[in-house]
Amino acid sequence: MRFLHTADWHIGRRLHGFDLSEEQKDAFQQIETAAKKYQVDGIIIAGDIYDRKLPAEKSVQMLNHMLRQLNLKDHFPIYAISGNHDSATRLSTGAPWYRDTNFYMHTSVAQSFQPVELPDVQLFLLPYFEPFEVQQYFQDSSLKNVSLAFDAIVSKMKTLFDPHKKHILVSHFFASGSSQTDSETQLKVGGLAAVPVDLLSAFDYVALGHLHGKDAIHDPKIQYSGSPIKFSMSEAHQKKGFFIVDTDHIQDRTFVPLKPKRDVQQISASFEKLTDPKFYQQLNCDNYFGFLLKNQKPIPNVMQRLRKIYPHIASLSRAAGYEINVDYDGENGAKLKKANPMEVLNQFYQKVANEPLSDQQKQWAEDALQNAHDGRKKP
Amino acid sequence: MRFLHTADWHIGRRLHGFDLSEEQKDAFQQIETAAKKYQVDGIIIAGDIYDRKLPAEKSVQMLNHMLRQLNLKDHFPIYAISGNHDSATRLSTGAPWYRDTNFYMHTSVAQSFQPVELPDVQLFLLPYFEPFEVQQYFQDSSLKNVSLAFDAIVSKMKTLFDPHKKHILVSHFFASGSSQTDSETQLKVGGLAAVPVDLLSAFDYVALGHLHGKDAIHDPKIQYSGSPIKFSMSEAHQKKGFFIVDTDHIQDRTFVPLKPKRDVQQISASFEKLTDPKFYQQLNCDNYFGFLLKNQKPIPNVMQRLRKIYPHIASLSRAAGYEINVDYDGENGAKLKKANPMEVLNQFYQKVANEPLSDQQKQWAEDALQNAHDGRKKP
Repeated sequence: MRFLHTADWHIGRRLHGFDLSEEQKDAFQQIETAAKKYQVDGIIIAGDIYDRKLPAEKSVQMLNHMLRQLNLKDHFPIYAISGNHDSATRLSTGAPWYRDTNFYMHTSVAQSFQPVELPDVQLFLLPYFEPFEVQQYFQDSSLKNVSLAFDAIVSKMKTLFDPHKKHILVSHFFASGSSQTDSETQLKVGGLAAVPVDLLSAFDYVALGHLHGKDAIHDPKIQYSGSPIKFSMSEAHQKKGFFIVDTDHIQDRTFVPLKPKRDVQQISASFEKLTDPKFYQQLNCDNYFGFLLKNQKPIPNVMQRLRKIYPHIASLSRAAGYEINVDYDGENGAKLKKANPMEVLNQFYQKVANEPLSDQQKQWAEDALQNAHDGRKKP
Repeated sequence: MRFLHTADWHIGRRLHGFDLSEEQKDAFQQIETAAKKYQVDGIIIAGDIYDRKLPAEKSVQMLNHMLRQLNLKDHFPIYAISGNHDSATRLSTGAPWYRDTNFYMHTSVAQSFQPVELPDVQLFLLPYFEPFEVQQYFQDSSLKNVSLAFDAIVSKMKTLFDPHKKHILVSHFFASGSSQTDSETQLKVGGLAAVPVDLLSAFDYVALGHLHGKDAIHDPKIQYSGSPIKFSMSEAHQKKGFFIVDTDHIQDRTFVPLKPKRDVQQISASFEKLTDPKFYQQLNCDNYFGFLLKNQKPIPNVMQRLRKIYPHIASLSRAAGYEINVDYDGENGAKLKKANPMEVLNQFYQKVANEPLSDQQKQWAEDALQNAHDGRKKP
């Protein structure tokens, strides 16, 4: 059997204020096209389908459309679980009716013990869980962390194994050994929230969601699909896509890259380089950019000037810090307070604009000073 | 064919801060029991299923359970629409999958032109709509108000009429001529949001939601089911329930009352009467009460004292206004400011407590005054 494995759609997510819905729709269409091209027997979506427990109406509409398209129009079976970003309750709406069209949306630990029985595969769909839910399920308060809880879950799953079939686990957690980016929710310190990789050895394939990079773990049988698009600057260098997995050749699974509608790029350069046509004409300026400016001196209206060239700047910071030479306290401050205001202005302007005040500018400044001076005398 | 007609469940609604979920679950169970007893061929839910466009997780869980129970466990067909309190988008989640089990959840005007075809009935499910949606559907900007929009909708529905069947309209609006209570959302002035009753004459039965009283309209063919429970003090005198409608005897439809788990009662009485065991022992003190106190004088700790007898007081007001005799301005105020503080306190206490200060109380007050006086002298 052949599956398409994707995860972490995060419908409704924004990138530093930018709406990503067009990018998400575009990635979805590529996934749908690939599912048809590869003639897959089902689509695995390993959690974090929405970005928020309480998705906006627009996001609900988008996801409803996508799932209808895949399952009711294209007739692909869907094997989905809720992730830590989803509301299990909201995502479960409608789920009991989905079964008839081979759409499985599992949102509780109890459901993970009802494997989907396919001709040569048992699919265990285990949603993101908190240890408390597992304690309740097993009536065992000793299952205090994710690792212990997971161990209990896998032990029970093994009792359900059909020895004539392959066993696939679909789940959503942090497998220890994997590396993280800053768009994944902060995990608890001390590794309590991580599942050791060796607990996964019972399965022929573990289709994971949660971490957004496909390379978070390198293991013959364990795979994060990664998110379909880049959700933060720290993902700028990740290759995004999904996997095509044949159950007869699990280790030879294929990574299918997704072409971003608008890419996310991190660039470290000087302001002069960024504003040089020779440089930016080689870029797709419509992408989302995170700039690390190499300049240390102040640059007037820096954001406004860069946005004229790059309309989607997601972040702007200084690669080597920001140099401020003005010191209002101490000796410098004392000097500054005694200095002629026109001199101070001249120096300041020279520093930030790299040119002296023009005669017209000087005249304006002198008039303004005179006005302020007169105003002080005549109350 | 036989239908159960209900509406305005408002799952998640609160009564002056009190959670009504237990009452709502209880009413639901009575509805379910009746549906079995009357062996109905389907259940009509005419909008305002949720109380809010963004229902709480707990409400989502409750409704999901109810719908699963009715449709998947009891195998009743469901004919439902969204009301003005619902989010059409959120309520439509899962709807395309519901069809296979005869569960129709219509949330758009376009869907109202796909009547549910039953052996001897065509069911038109028209959700609550804004004129704008109808303008868009018909590409006709002249449909500026609900009445004009509704006329256009009915004209189109008539072209779909099968002359060999009865025609039932399920909808959610304010039919003109009906009276309103304060728990229904404020309607636009000028009657623009109302649909004239004569536009409904094409149908054999019009199953309405929106107004919470079944008696809002008296018409052989038009019926508000009313809400299953009382949602405001102004509904205290309404009889709550639902209708059983036989398509062969539409005019002889049966109103089935629902027994409230906790009733909502409005009582106008004096404080003395309300706190008299002979009076309150005849009441179910566990009900929700709206009290109109006949007393005009201040009553100390009135709410606290009443709550000891009636734990669920939803509102408390004065039937004949509140008498305050103290006047801090003018002649009275001048007198008051000159008066001996112990005298003022004595008078005030006598007025609110209906007894003079005890010697101990006098001593406390005098000590407190002395302390305040000493404090003023020694800074």
